[in-house]
Amino acid sequence: MSRLFMFEKPLGMRDTLPELYETKYQTRAIISNEMKKWGYQFIETPTLEYYETVGTASAILDQQLFKLLDQQGHTLVLRPDMTSPIARVAASKLLNEDMPLRLAYSTNVFRAQQREGGRPAEFEQIGVECIGDSTISADGEGIALLISSLEETGLENFQLSVGHIGFVKEFFTDILGTEDRVKALTTFLYEKNYVGYREHVKQLPLSSIDKQRLLDFLSLRGGEEIIERAFTLLENDKGRRSLEDLKQLWDTLADYNGSVEGRVKFDLTLVSHMSYYTGIVFEVYADQVGFPIASGGRYDLLLKQFGKDRGATGFAIHLDRLLEALGKIEAKEPVECIIFSAERRKEAYQLAAKKRKEGLKIVVQDINGVENIDACTQTFEEVVMLVGKAGKEGGAQ
Amino acid sequence: MSRLFMFEKPLGMRDTLPELYETKYQTRAIISNEMKKWGYQFIETPTLEYYETVGTASAILDQQLFKLLDQQGHTLVLRPDMTSPIARVAASKLLNEDMPLRLAYSTNVFRAQQREGGRPAEFEQIGVECIGDSTISADGEGIALLISSLEETGLENFQLSVGHIGFVKEFFTDILGTEDRVKALTTFLYEKNYVGYREHVKQLPLSSIDKQRLLDFLSLRGGEEIIERAFTLLENDKGRRSLEDLKQLWDTLADYNGSVEGRVKFDLTLVSHMSYYTGIVFEVYADQVGFPIASGGRYDLLLKQFGKDRGATGFAIHLDRLLEALGKIEAKEPVECIIFSAERRKEAYQLAAKKRKEGLKIVVQDINGVENIDACTQTFEEVVMLVGKAGKEGGAQ
Repeated sequence: MSRLFMFEKPLGMRDTLPELYETKYQTRAIISNEMKKWGYQFIETPTLEYYETVGTASAILDQQLFKLLDQQGHTLVLRPDMTSPIARVAASKLLNEDMPLRLAYSTNVFRAQQREGGRPAEFEQIGVECIGDSTISADGEGIALLISSLEETGLENFQLSVGHIGFVKEFFTDILGTEDRVKALTTFLYEKNYVGYREHVKQLPLSSIDKQRLLDFLSLRGGEEIIERAFTLLENDKGRRSLEDLKQLWDTLADYNGSVEGRVKFDLTLVSHMSYYTGIVFEVYADQVGFPIASGGRYDLLLKQFGKDRGATGFAIHLDRLLEALGKIEAKEPVECIIFSAERRKEAYQLAAKKRKEGLKIVVQDINGVENIDACTQTFEEVVMLVGKAGKEGGAQ
Repeated sequence: MSRLFMFEKPLGMRDTLPELYETKYQTRAIISNEMKKWGYQFIETPTLEYYETVGTASAILDQQLFKLLDQQGHTLVLRPDMTSPIARVAASKLLNEDMPLRLAYSTNVFRAQQREGGRPAEFEQIGVECIGDSTISADGEGIALLISSLEETGLENFQLSVGHIGFVKEFFTDILGTEDRVKALTTFLYEKNYVGYREHVKQLPLSSIDKQRLLDFLSLRGGEEIIERAFTLLENDKGRRSLEDLKQLWDTLADYNGSVEGRVKFDLTLVSHMSYYTGIVFEVYADQVGFPIASGGRYDLLLKQFGKDRGATGFAIHLDRLLEALGKIEAKEPVECIIFSAERRKEAYQLAAKKRKEGLKIVVQDINGVENIDACTQTFEEVVMLVGKAGKEGGAQ
């Protein structure tokens, strides 16, 4: 292979070296533990799925899917999210019980990158799905569990915004009528391009009252009071039911400890790129991280694609972004090194076994395998030399 | 999507449901912990690698690789093993230090399956690589760590067989001369088809003395005494050095605690499908599992492909096979359920928070999300009903 190409990785692919690995490991363990305490059970699904089964059910754009052909000629995809595979498993294997299912996962997902842009093509999501429960309590539980999980990791400055896909859809359809027009405006919201949104609204052939309603819509961000204001903007019954959902959600969240309520704000302009969301949606932003570190919501129609008509809600934490927000890397764990020569090999092994029993991390190194002994003092916390004839042990550093 | 196809997974792909997931999780944690105690550091590499970089360096047959094209037109592979990616990382980033590198991983690898055969196309390997150390001590450490890791999981009946690729190669070349002939005989060994081997030897145009040597070779399995017997079969210096390696390995292993030595037998007929092995190789068999649950060895030439000429040795545990050998599934962890109606929601959340603080696993369920209350008693260890006006709490089961 060519020298230049030798160390290259595919676009958007990265190695995770020891210190970052440990940090991820610790953070993942904290979050998993919290999810388990709330009764969620972890499952794993294959990295490869049939395009026809999971690829088309996923909300990820087709050009972002990694596709390949298997030897039987079927198109496979690397899973672009975990919601669709979990819907498949739940519908096929687990959903015969009459109780809602609470499932969790921590796994890598894949999104092909179009060009150099620093975005990862493979990244880890930790999340939960509560399947078969259409109550607002289930939405509230997702939000409360997400906040609790993030707090357990030590994250301090973050905010969860809640919106409702049903409200946005009804409000826009009520004013704009056609699906194309709704889509155009929704795209501005998804891109959080509010200047573009305002410009676009000005050019629409609408009454000045309706234009004002569309502009007022942008200010529907804040506390509980926002819901009342939203009621004044919409008379459509279905849209109003979405607002009732949000009111009920607020009451539900208030019944958790105060920290949950304090973290939550409404943002009725929130829409998602995940087209399967149908109801309450939410995302979490933390200081200094440009993208949401977690997001989720209700998807009441996805299960139908797998033959079961059940409501469901869930969220996923983007682990790398969370680590960025936490801004800490686990300190390298102290490792001791015992360097030995053949005469004292047994002594070295015995000493290492004793120290490992005490829980210490010990490298045992044959001196003949080391090119530069001085490098040891840089690599290890402590170095014990068991070299030459037995007797006094030498120590370095 | 068609109803029949709806729940299908690609050939050789499987879901891991909660109880098996927990069992894997616990076993993986035990092994990882042991590897860390021996000073190995975990890393992660991408699922996708360039075919030109890692695909061709891997010892996995080309038709077993999952290949795809990226949007730039490069061929990518799903990593078929972790040894080649680790060699890439070590050579590019980590091997500037003068100390040997001890790296570990626990990750899924991918091997395309030709036809239905029950073999998994995606499976987890937990392993280590000690890079930059050509001493026999490094080989011995790998074997001792593997045995120690397996014992920590509670595995009782298992045996580690050690061979030497250098010896097999020299012995066969010495007698057979051509590479094609060597390959033919080696294939019988790899398939453990000893009847075929004997038949094949009989038909070779060799002296009866050489034929007898080739037949005697098959009996080179057993304890320390095997090495002396092997010396009588081979005069070639290079081959004899391999036997010296094995003698030294035996002495090294004897310096660990007795349990290590007791687990090890020589099997000089051992060859591997991994073509990168160059020296000492080993594999572990456990009662009742038809395939090795772990294997490893020395690969002194792989790093050269990434521009560094360093020796290396490592092993991988096939986690699913280990679980099969352990034959146990973690008992489902007890989960309690609190069912509430809106009037007593807050009480339910408070009770759950208290119990979770005590370390318990608690599902909190809105009664409106449950279709069949009786199903709860089957699903959960204990059910607390907080329904209707506050007062006495009802309990089920």
